[in-house]
Amino acid sequence: MKIAFVGFGNVARAFARIIDERRTELAHRFDLTLSTVAIATANHGSVRSTDSIDLINAVACVEQGGNLTRLPQTIPIADTQSLLEGCDADLIFETTPLNIEGGQPAVTHIRTALRRGIHVVTANKGPIAFAYEELRSLAQEHEVEFRFEGTVMDGAPVFNLVESCLPGARVLGFSGVLNSTTNLILTEMESGHSFEESLKEAQRLGIAETNAEHDIDGWDAAVKAVALANVLMNANAHPADVAREGIAGITVENLKSASESGSTLRLIARARLSERGIRLSVAPEKMSVTSLFGSARGTSNVLMLETDLMGELAIVENNPGVEQTAYALLSDLLNIHRSFSRSKK
Amino acid sequence: MKIAFVGFGNVARAFARIIDERRTELAHRFDLTLSTVAIATANHGSVRSTDSIDLINAVACVEQGGNLTRLPQTIPIADTQSLLEGCDADLIFETTPLNIEGGQPAVTHIRTALRRGIHVVTANKGPIAFAYEELRSLAQEHEVEFRFEGTVMDGAPVFNLVESCLPGARVLGFSGVLNSTTNLILTEMESGHSFEESLKEAQRLGIAETNAEHDIDGWDAAVKAVALANVLMNANAHPADVAREGIAGITVENLKSASESGSTLRLIARARLSERGIRLSVAPEKMSVTSLFGSARGTSNVLMLETDLMGELAIVENNPGVEQTAYALLSDLLNIHRSFSRSKK
Repeated sequence: MKIAFVGFGNVARAFARIIDERRTELAHRFDLTLSTVAIATANHGSVRSTDSIDLINAVACVEQGGNLTRLPQTIPIADTQSLLEGCDADLIFETTPLNIEGGQPAVTHIRTALRRGIHVVTANKGPIAFAYEELRSLAQEHEVEFRFEGTVMDGAPVFNLVESCLPGARVLGFSGVLNSTTNLILTEMESGHSFEESLKEAQRLGIAETNAEHDIDGWDAAVKAVALANVLMNANAHPADVAREGIAGITVENLKSASESGSTLRLIARARLSERGIRLSVAPEKMSVTSLFGSARGTSNVLMLETDLMGELAIVENNPGVEQTAYALLSDLLNIHRSFSRSKK
Repeated sequence: MKIAFVGFGNVARAFARIIDERRTELAHRFDLTLSTVAIATANHGSVRSTDSIDLINAVACVEQGGNLTRLPQTIPIADTQSLLEGCDADLIFETTPLNIEGGQPAVTHIRTALRRGIHVVTANKGPIAFAYEELRSLAQEHEVEFRFEGTVMDGAPVFNLVESCLPGARVLGFSGVLNSTTNLILTEMESGHSFEESLKEAQRLGIAETNAEHDIDGWDAAVKAVALANVLMNANAHPADVAREGIAGITVENLKSASESGSTLRLIARARLSERGIRLSVAPEKMSVTSLFGSARGTSNVLMLETDLMGELAIVENNPGVEQTAYALLSDLLNIHRSFSRSKK
């Protein structure tokens, strides 16, 4: 399978290391051999290859601040769009950062790839929040797969869980702690650290969004809530539909006073069916420290699904890091490979 | 699809109600029409049908203490074994109660059905704990499916989660609150109720095993731990391998004293990789009330999987009832139908 990368940041590079390390296992256990035909980056050049790009060389090059055009047997490409229009990849990994104003240019990247009959895996939640219906139809029309498990809760199965493991059941609503940065900040503040110290800790761990205000203001959680509602509940919602309140106004004193009544604060994303359709919200909520949401500390995420036939079911991701987002790309890749090889039989 | 029931207790009857209610949806959404050709029970007779047995009549008959042979167009069958050898079902639902001394007669029922090329769905954990390797091979050999999602955590995806949603990842160990009866008892005792009162409450809710000692002594959790280890970790383990301690020795005072240090007690099933293979245990453990396990109260179950690529991932089932176990049968049925129809294309 020929693969290409659009975006080659932390997540894509962690994924590149995994598929390099597991090369033998992928070949033997899954009958899958990968060859990298192109990489597009914003600050380190964009290239396609006459052969196959050595991923470990590419990772080292970018991490040393170099330009990919220096790698052997590569041809420089002017921009991502030309790369997508010209490359012969079977699958692209789209991992550019979230743009909360419409999801571009990721939506265009994905549209171009799908139209050319290329499978797409993305870890960028923007396209799912802003253009899910269109991209899903496009994928169906061109008989390719469009997968995005990493957009919510990293590699923890959320979309695949409902698709593969809850057949015949309906998602009626959900609630969740979906943003690691704000959860880490609230947990740190519980122990008396200031907001600023706690934010710095999140940045030190490399989990904060490129623009940390997107986390603090609840935008990241709101975009994830919309992605979940669009895919799991056919909501056809838009990030602007979310009643959104961030954590900027929360003080150490608020948390102390909650603690006196056995509670704490969590930034909760919710979707509820109402008479006027699906209502989405993101807001700090008071939760008992002995509740499931109260038990989610640090970078941990929790999603509680409310279903018709299976009652309430939650998935918890315990203290994830970039490796877990990288795993989402692997899981999507293997799912595509699985249905791809099945359909060829 | 022609189906048959071996065992027609609470779970099977709740499932029968679901498939009757959702008849139209199953036909339209999944292109699945079910026809019941046989039902075997221990105390209400065993029958096969010349036509299709009306499930709602059968449910009513059993719930009124009647004998299935009274139903129209049925032929009485002497015993389950003859029924399995003679019926022309495509799929059987095996829901006889757990026998912790070897898993019989369920193992024999399943063996007979698989050998005859009949798909099997079971909610009985005995066969998975005592004969998984053999039954899995038998299913492969006869090109039929053998599914058992309901054996651990009811319809919450556990086996399907790892099979479908964690491709390429390895389960290195697990820990979980897997027995609802003991968890309800411990939760009730936290609030000061006596052991006996709490056990009665579990029995009143209909969640205790037929023999409640199997719950109290940790047998149910041990058999589930073995089922998980056999399927998810290829442990080839046996219930006798589990270091097992139940909750009979726990007093309200123990819980009070744990509570003074912000803790509580939970019956935890564990699997750990060690140099001498996979070590399995079931024992009451002290857990912080603010931990994930501490947050599991009442009949709730939690399973925390430790994996190589996806880190720690938990699934939580919030206060399930018999409907959630019945959903497991539906989920297995739909999964079989899905791969069945795919392979026919």
